[in-house]
Amino acid sequence: MQGLNINADRLWQSLMAIGDIGHVDVPGSKVGGCHRLALSEKDLRGRQLFIDWCQAEGCSLRIDAIGNLFLRRPGRNNDLAPIVTGSHLDTQPTGGKFDGIYGCLAGLEAIRALNERGIETERPIEVVVWTNEEGARFKPAMLGSGVFAGVFTLEEALAKEDADGVSVAQALQQAGYDTDSRTQTAIHRYFELHIEQGPVLEANNIDLGIVSGVLGMRWYRVNVSGQSCHAGPSPMEMRNDALVGSAKMISELTEMAAAGGPSTRCTIGELEIPSASCNVSPGEVIFSLDLREASQEALQALEDKARALIEALAAARNLSVSIEQFWELPASPFDSGAIEQIRTAASESMPTEQSMTLVSGAGHDAVYISRVAPTAMIFVPSENGLSHNEKEYTPPEQLAKGANLLLHTLLQAANS
Amino acid sequence: MQGLNINADRLWQSLMAIGDIGHVDVPGSKVGGCHRLALSEKDLRGRQLFIDWCQAEGCSLRIDAIGNLFLRRPGRNNDLAPIVTGSHLDTQPTGGKFDGIYGCLAGLEAIRALNERGIETERPIEVVVWTNEEGARFKPAMLGSGVFAGVFTLEEALAKEDADGVSVAQALQQAGYDTDSRTQTAIHRYFELHIEQGPVLEANNIDLGIVSGVLGMRWYRVNVSGQSCHAGPSPMEMRNDALVGSAKMISELTEMAAAGGPSTRCTIGELEIPSASCNVSPGEVIFSLDLREASQEALQALEDKARALIEALAAARNLSVSIEQFWELPASPFDSGAIEQIRTAASESMPTEQSMTLVSGAGHDAVYISRVAPTAMIFVPSENGLSHNEKEYTPPEQLAKGANLLLHTLLQAANS
Repeated sequence: MQGLNINADRLWQSLMAIGDIGHVDVPGSKVGGCHRLALSEKDLRGRQLFIDWCQAEGCSLRIDAIGNLFLRRPGRNNDLAPIVTGSHLDTQPTGGKFDGIYGCLAGLEAIRALNERGIETERPIEVVVWTNEEGARFKPAMLGSGVFAGVFTLEEALAKEDADGVSVAQALQQAGYDTDSRTQTAIHRYFELHIEQGPVLEANNIDLGIVSGVLGMRWYRVNVSGQSCHAGPSPMEMRNDALVGSAKMISELTEMAAAGGPSTRCTIGELEIPSASCNVSPGEVIFSLDLREASQEALQALEDKARALIEALAAARNLSVSIEQFWELPASPFDSGAIEQIRTAASESMPTEQSMTLVSGAGHDAVYISRVAPTAMIFVPSENGLSHNEKEYTPPEQLAKGANLLLHTLLQAANS
Repeated sequence: MQGLNINADRLWQSLMAIGDIGHVDVPGSKVGGCHRLALSEKDLRGRQLFIDWCQAEGCSLRIDAIGNLFLRRPGRNNDLAPIVTGSHLDTQPTGGKFDGIYGCLAGLEAIRALNERGIETERPIEVVVWTNEEGARFKPAMLGSGVFAGVFTLEEALAKEDADGVSVAQALQQAGYDTDSRTQTAIHRYFELHIEQGPVLEANNIDLGIVSGVLGMRWYRVNVSGQSCHAGPSPMEMRNDALVGSAKMISELTEMAAAGGPSTRCTIGELEIPSASCNVSPGEVIFSLDLREASQEALQALEDKARALIEALAAARNLSVSIEQFWELPASPFDSGAIEQIRTAASESMPTEQSMTLVSGAGHDAVYISRVAPTAMIFVPSENGLSHNEKEYTPPEQLAKGANLLLHTLLQAANS
């Protein structure tokens, strides 16, 4: 439906109004940062403002037992499973005003646009606010969507405590929520709009990203052992230096990943030299290894190559090595039908827009929801690739483009 | 003088007897370790045993104000400056029975051999025990020889405190030493016999090392800055990873040193990633750099090459870098006459012995003494290159060879 657009100014004003709750002045930041931890007094004020706006648009509210908010715009046939969109309103301790918040407010803005034009849909449309996505107050992250998708039980989630010993159950009680513990009805399709949190769209000068999935991740601990020796009496050729070997591994692992596909990621974020001393050639080094790929098969192939490379370099230098995996999040390719729906909406409703397909390297609520409903995501650029940062920023025009694509996607999905 | 030899068994028995004071049982060690910190009750017992043995050989004792022991075997002309040999009797907390101790006992053993044969020398010969060489109890290391050579004032040295707040002055007072604070008379030549503390002699299968000097050392702090980013959303080619850049620097710096001369050393012993996290591509890395070379000119050339290499790698990767020197010990080439004296003694008195010339990468009392007297050193092998280690070991036959070379060197020097 051409000519149907969200109101870019109203979207921006709403974002800034929510962002005022927890606003932090930050030199060098265009709009300031935001501090609004999950289920804190500030988060509850932000959620209430959001509920008020949605209810003013005729939406009904349902709150589930973990505090996820579902705001429903009825369809012609309310027995059909809804089309759901949304994200989260909580922030990192030194977070910005866009990560998560944008996805919720763009959902509201879509409903406002439909209401203004008096457009009915076959299916109901819901905007959801997931609880504690950031994991900054209660660990783990993506707690509300995880409970919804059955990744965590309600009981274990309610028992999680913040640094002051306040549990999720207590925080929800203090919120005074009138919760509805009915089993969640099915979601027909879930679409999440989010800032990219990375540099790809900006670098490609493209405003809209169609997200094909979230990378699978595996974390390893690599322990390299040689023989420590005194920096003075030991000629270079007689050393068995674990750091020099590790440096070669780090160089070659990252070169291997750079020569891989567009979804290949390899990061060494931590490195420790036990008993380090300026004048001792290190006998032991421990470093972390974070590998990511778009599918489980590709991730396994990447792991195999990384292991072979590390072991060959260790053997060539008379070092011993162990590689221990200690965490995994499987790859979450999104639903091809849901992805296609976004593509169709982009091509039919916004013919002059350019979009690109990309993967998400970071986790989102959509990862868990994709396990229980056909899911896809839309990204807009993040200035300088920054996120989880008080300087996080996306210009109003780009936010409007993403919200328009979401609007047309929801409209088509709710009528199909 | 051919046929003149020390008594290898007696040398070994003396070493083991001193080593019993502070002996530590260590599985896998051939003779056990030793714990005898400078001026501790155990060190004082070891020193007294050494004094008793020397006095039994007719030596006179003088103790200077920092507790250095000088045991003199008179010559025919006692107005001449003495030939001095020796080392130290204190150990590291988890030290061995050879580092330092061997040099003192081999000096005593040389005097015993001269006495047995009734050999007089023109100049007096002195065996010295330097105070607190290891720096394990009182920092800095080489305190006694440093005071002797004027590197530290007596006052600053006496004020140094151990971890319990006991000063050197208090420890000396507790020792009850009858000190003689006369200005030190000149040393005609100083020879120090020591275990190598490194792998070079063993690797070359040679029992005697003639030490041409001690490497100059400079320590630097290298700070590499890029931009941290999330391990997921950032494709490999868009990163500005300070650790990947540092890894390349570590590889190329050590390869450059390996391609250098036999005295070139380059060690990266410490590496820190501020705010390290497994899933963050590091934006900052700080590492230490220890460069050593045989002369100040070579050390400066090595530094120039290292700086150029680091800066070129940083520039190629859009990283910024700072390189700050924070410590230096200048190169100490030994006296050519003193070195030649050892060579002459080796060729004339032990024609079947093989020796090689090498540098010392570690500091010794001889470094400071070389500033006030013509100095050179002799090394014998360290099994597996180990030192400052409870498994430190040199076989009796090799200890005897070193002591014989010292004996003939002293004899020639004392008559020339």
